[in-house]
Amino acid sequence: MRNFLSTADWSRPELQGVLDRAAAFKDGATSRALEGKSIALLFFNPSLRTRSSFDIGAHQLGGHAIVLDAKGQTWPMEFTDGTVMDGTAEEHVRESARVLSQYVDLIAIRCFPDFVDWKVEREDPLITAFAAHATVPVINMETIVHPCQELALMLAMQSRLGDVAGKEFLLTWVPHPKPLNTAVANSALLIASKFGMNIRMLIPDDVYRLDERYMGAAENFVAEGGGSLKVTTDVKAAYDGADAVYAKSWGALPFFGQWDGEAPSRAKGADFMITPEKMAMTNNAVISHCLPMRRNVKIADAVVDSPAFMGIEEAGNRLHVQKAIMENLAGQA
Amino acid sequence: MRNFLSTADWSRPELQGVLDRAAAFKDGATSRALEGKSIALLFFNPSLRTRSSFDIGAHQLGGHAIVLDAKGQTWPMEFTDGTVMDGTAEEHVRESARVLSQYVDLIAIRCFPDFVDWKVEREDPLITAFAAHATVPVINMETIVHPCQELALMLAMQSRLGDVAGKEFLLTWVPHPKPLNTAVANSALLIASKFGMNIRMLIPDDVYRLDERYMGAAENFVAEGGGSLKVTTDVKAAYDGADAVYAKSWGALPFFGQWDGEAPSRAKGADFMITPEKMAMTNNAVISHCLPMRRNVKIADAVVDSPAFMGIEEAGNRLHVQKAIMENLAGQA
Amino acid sequence: MRNFLSTADWSRPELQGVLDRAAAFKDGATSRALEGKSIALLFFNPSLRTRSSFDIGAHQLGGHAIVLDAKGQTWPMEFTDGTVMDGTAEEHVRESARVLSQYVDLIAIRCFPDFVDWKVEREDPLITAFAAHATVPVINMETIVHPCQELALMLAMQSRLGDVAGKEFLLTWVPHPKPLNTAVANSALLIASKFGMNIRMLIPDDVYRLDERYMGAAENFVAEGGGSLKVTTDVKAAYDGADAVYAKSWGALPFFGQWDGEAPSRAKGADFMITPEKMAMTNNAVISHCLPMRRNVKIADAVVDSPAFMGIEEAGNRLHVQKAIMENLAGQA
Repeated sequence: MRNFLSTADWSRPELQGVLDRAAAFKDGATSRALEGKSIALLFFNPSLRTRSSFDIGAHQLGGHAIVLDAKGQTWPMEFTDGTVMDGTAEEHVRESARVLSQYVDLIAIRCFPDFVDWKVEREDPLITAFAAHATVPVINMETIVHPCQELALMLAMQSRLGDVAGKEFLLTWVPHPKPLNTAVANSALLIASKFGMNIRMLIPDDVYRLDERYMGAAENFVAEGGGSLKVTTDVKAAYDGADAVYAKSWGALPFFGQWDGEAPSRAKGADFMITPEKMAMTNNAVISHCLPMRRNVKIADAVVDSPAFMGIEEAGNRLHVQKAIMENLAGQA
Repeated sequence: MRNFLSTADWSRPELQGVLDRAAAFKDGATSRALEGKSIALLFFNPSLRTRSSFDIGAHQLGGHAIVLDAKGQTWPMEFTDGTVMDGTAEEHVRESARVLSQYVDLIAIRCFPDFVDWKVEREDPLITAFAAHATVPVINMETIVHPCQELALMLAMQSRLGDVAGKEFLLTWVPHPKPLNTAVANSALLIASKFGMNIRMLIPDDVYRLDERYMGAAENFVAEGGGSLKVTTDVKAAYDGADAVYAKSWGALPFFGQWDGEAPSRAKGADFMITPEKMAMTNNAVISHCLPMRRNVKIADAVVDSPAFMGIEEAGNRLHVQKAIMENLAGQA
Repeated sequence: MRNFLSTADWSRPELQGVLDRAAAFKDGATSRALEGKSIALLFFNPSLRTRSSFDIGAHQLGGHAIVLDAKGQTWPMEFTDGTVMDGTAEEHVRESARVLSQYVDLIAIRCFPDFVDWKVEREDPLITAFAAHATVPVINMETIVHPCQELALMLAMQSRLGDVAGKEFLLTWVPHPKPLNTAVANSALLIASKFGMNIRMLIPDDVYRLDERYMGAAENFVAEGGGSLKVTTDVKAAYDGADAVYAKSWGALPFFGQWDGEAPSRAKGADFMITPEKMAMTNNAVISHCLPMRRNVKIADAVVDSPAFMGIEEAGNRLHVQKAIMENLAGQA
């Protein structure tokens, strides 16, 4: 049984198949692949687009989504085996995953890190435990990667740029008042490398390198797929001739959970906001950001409101790629 | 593209058309006007009836509703243009409205004032921004007016009184432990004036006059439609010969956000609760209140439990008028 | 009009009819009994299984469920008649029950005790008021009893043990960090006695006797149905030769709301966790617990992960028994 936990587990042709199906949905294709089936959407964190697009997507496929707010509406959950459960957790994932699997045909989970200990969080323990114990396919709605967002981004890029192999992809760190999850940055790295792009990763300081698991995977993918990966702190070099710019802010992993020490490194990126001046250095690049997005902090209004911005289209693509994923997973024997 | 933000934007014949369609739904008419369509219900405040009746109404029309709790389940939103978003808001309405418009065919919003600054709140900034940026019709589920409640009230009055033009409509301020939103009072004024009723607005003190936008609109509507509008603090004169009594409590706008100064004015209305004695002065009036409603604070049990009370019917009408509105808006070219 | 508030109001043949229908659903039978109908699920407390299984069950029957979180998403409710509602409650059950009855065909309610005053809570005031004022059938999703869980348990026991009459049923108190609701314990007592089992109720101290209403009902049922009821603090005697073990933790009623005084009694049950050693004393008993369940506090991993554990099956049965209940109630003239 196949899950959709990370695009790293799916081959490029498989992913292209999903993208082609998503493009067909976007063009008006219909499917009743979830007729008589249901999906549980389990949220440990807030959501606007994910909640809406999965619910509506399931409905358009003839299925039924139930939305569970795991914090507040349900019971606190334990996911470590062998624990004496005398703390706050009332329920073990071993039980909840097996029970939900009896009710629904797919389980989708959003669970951000708790920002306490990256050594623990990098193992993605909750969704990993859910996938281990569920008897139906599990979909990642963002944990420490965000594979649905990746596909939405790639669909938008393919629509605007055609074949992306060999195109110059700039992943740039941008400012934000708070240290954020690295999930979307990890994901941008995975999908751009998987599809053979030349990646420039622009960070204000070396401490913003992403986890070695994702840096390493990207290096392997570009080695296989014909792209390249370069990390830089040089703004000009990064923007020069880029075909696509992707913005994301994240917290530096060496200071994970102890963020005070990150301040000097963060200060080096104070002027990393994407402006028309920076965009002028590119090869008429398209520009995007997953949503939510702070205007005039990460990206200037003039860039967001320009035709180059494809963040709205990317968010719209979420509906289509998720329908393709649900159809794919529900169709397994 | 037409929105349903305020009845003030709709003509009396248009509104009567919606009411007639609602009456037909109440009598058993069916429609699949939302087949294959969906509506997002975006709540910034609590709801029982609105959430239930919109969701069920959409389903009965063949459509699909998604419910989004904007506080807690989604991201804090900014709606002012040009802001440097370095505060709590993670997302601008420009993005959320456009993205939701890609997923759904209708967007309905509940957003009460924050009770800080009436000068700001009276511009209804959030729903106004949503309507400006959404590319699908927007429905008001209560902001500083409550147009769905208005239609439900009017349907109940027409059912009980027939043509309401020229009937005596008493809008009476009633006690409540807290200063409340003026939305339903504004709305009662709008709909009664639009349909040519003779309005008596009973308030304990002049500070309880409603915003000039609504007072002025009501004066214009009665001038066009043949009714009248009179504001009074005289309980006897207000109840004498009334055909319909509508109860609502609200905070005095001059003390908006600084409520301590309102206490002496509020005290003047301490005996404004609707009692059988007051009802005995009317012309066998019908009596109603939007829900929720505090018994024995706003209206005495004996009145609520009398046949004259039509609050339950009014609440039931919400389902029918909202189906008529959704059908109307979804049917636009 | 029939409600499903407690199995005590339903005869054993009626309940067996519901169980037989649930077994048919489990075997693949389908029904469109809720076609064009809807159910409101009103939650005053968290839920995972109940929320999921009612929503999906209603959908599978062709109906539509709406989920209302009564704390937070809706208004605080009053249920006592004649109250001057100048406290926190904004709405009386008299109104909410009648209004919801206009929108939906069934109302299901979860409302745990507030753990303040058992004399008040034992009257189950909220659901009782709802059932009094609603004009559609009301279903109990757990208050001070949990009748849906009872049926799920009985379906699991009948599947594993065949006819349960005369079988030895051990209801054992187990440890938990907090004093919990007695609902599931009351319910286990009701259903096992109703179906003629020989009940051993194992508690660490006499203060853990359940409310006399349920103890008395169980005595009456075993008197009618051929079983027996015995309360004991003797672990060995309780486990010896048992056919089914059911675990539950609850707070001692004499200390309800004043839990500090319960500590010495609770300490006497410190070693009541269900272990392989205890299970070895039984007649190869099946073992179950409603979920959520704290592992290695109430039941040791080795027992939960053994074939004797039927808690997952019991939870899965929730879907089927609730479909049978909804079909039964919706089919009333």
